[in-house]
Amino acid sequence: MSETVDPQFLPTARTTLKRLPKRAAYDRETVYAILDEGFVCHVGFAIDGSPYVIPTGYGRDGDVLYIHGSAASRMLRALEQAVPVCVNVTLLDGLVLARSAFHHSMNYRSVVVFGVASVVSDEGEKLRALRTFSEQVIPGRWDDVREPDEGELKATLVLKLPLAEASAKIRTGPPIDDEPDYKLPVWAGELPLHTVSGKPVADPRLPDGIEPPGYAVHYTRRRA
Amino acid sequence: MSETVDPQFLPTARTTLKRLPKRAAYDRETVYAILDEGFVCHVGFAIDGSPYVIPTGYGRDGDVLYIHGSAASRMLRALEQAVPVCVNVTLLDGLVLARSAFHHSMNYRSVVVFGVASVVSDEGEKLRALRTFSEQVIPGRWDDVREPDEGELKATLVLKLPLAEASAKIRTGPPIDDEPDYKLPVWAGELPLHTVSGKPVADPRLPDGIEPPGYAVHYTRRRA
Repeated sequence: MSETVDPQFLPTARTTLKRLPKRAAYDRETVYAILDEGFVCHVGFAIDGSPYVIPTGYGRDGDVLYIHGSAASRMLRALEQAVPVCVNVTLLDGLVLARSAFHHSMNYRSVVVFGVASVVSDEGEKLRALRTFSEQVIPGRWDDVREPDEGELKATLVLKLPLAEASAKIRTGPPIDDEPDYKLPVWAGELPLHTVSGKPVADPRLPDGIEPPGYAVHYTRRRA
Repeated sequence: MSETVDPQFLPTARTTLKRLPKRAAYDRETVYAILDEGFVCHVGFAIDGSPYVIPTGYGRDGDVLYIHGSAASRMLRALEQAVPVCVNVTLLDGLVLARSAFHHSMNYRSVVVFGVASVVSDEGEKLRALRTFSEQVIPGRWDDVREPDEGELKATLVLKLPLAEASAKIRTGPPIDDEPDYKLPVWAGELPLHTVSGKPVADPRLPDGIEPPGYAVHYTRRRA
C-alpha cells in the first residue's frame, strides 16, 4: 500500500458510464469519500452461472476494501476461490419529484468496484482489517471492547479487494423536466433522505450505571 | 396473478439459510412486508462470467416485482435476454454493540429473490407497473403528475420478476455475548438506525404559491 497510485481510476469497459456520462466520477477522492460514508455493501458473484447478491459490512484502508464474515458463510467460502466480484455501495440522498412521472428520479452517490477478492491469511493484517472494519462502522468502538482471541480470529474470514477498477455515479439537484411541463401547477423539487440513529437501547443484561458512550449517542454517518 | 399461491415459499438450495437458520423466513407475509417497506434493490446478474450489481428502484404488485429504467441502460438491456438474476433488498435497522469485537453485528431485514426477469411488452401492464413503482417510492405522487406519453413509455423498459423463489433473513434484538464477557464494564446494546426525510426543497423554477404536498412533508418508509 506504500506504492504510488494514480489519483484517477482508469475507466474500463465495465466502469465507464455510457448513458449520462456526466454522472460519472473516476477520481479516488470522490470514490473514497463515498466508500467512507457507507459501511454496508452489496457483493455480487456467480456460482455455476447463478448470480448471488449479498449485503455485508466493509471497511476501507487505503486502496483496499476489506470484507469479513464467518468462515462458514457460503458467500465468503465462494469468494475464497478467487472468483470475480462486483461490489456496490449506494448512499441514497433523496427523491427527485418532477412534474411528469417520467422524469422522477433519485439523488444518490454510488460506487462500483470490480475485482478478485483474496483471503487475508497474515494474522497481523487480519487483526488490522477487523479494526478497520470496526472503525468504519462505529468509530471509537474498537478501543472499548475485548479484542478477538485466536479462536475468534480463526473463525473469521477476511477478504481483501484491491481498489483498482472502480467508479462513482452521482446524481444531485432538482428535477430536469421537459420545458412545457414547467408551467404545470405541480410541486416539484427534492425530498432529502438521511440515515439517522435513535437513542441507544441498553442490553437487558447491562448492569446499572454503565452509560452509552458518546460515539453511540452522537452517531452520524456524515463524513468530510 | 389470480391463481392461488402458497403462503410459504418453498426453500431451495439457493434460498435456504445453512448458517443461523433461525434467522430465515419463508412466508410471503414476512417477505412482502420487507419488500413493501423498501424501494431500492440491488440486482445481480452475470455477463460473460463477469458479475454486475446495480442499485435500482422497484415496485411490488402481488407476486411480481417490477424493475424499470431507461431502455438504453446496460443492465436492463442485459436482463432483456432472460438471464438469471438475484435481487436483494436490505433494510438496516441498527448496529449491535457487543462486549467483544467478535460478537458485534447488525440488525436488519433482508430479502433475496432469484429468478429470470422478462420484459413487460403489454402497454396496459407497463403503465400499471410504472404506477406501482411510483406508489412504492412515494405513495400519492402518481395522481399529481403528468402520466407518461407514448414516447416516454417506449423509452422505458419495464421488467417483471415473479416472486417464486425468495426468502427473508432477519436479525433483531440485543448482542449475544460469550458468557464470561457479560461482566466486562462495557456498554452493550443496540443503536437503532432509521431512514428519515428532511424538509422538501423546492425546484428553483417552481412558481411561488405551490406548497409541497402532504405525502412529501410527512414522508415515511414505515409500513403497517
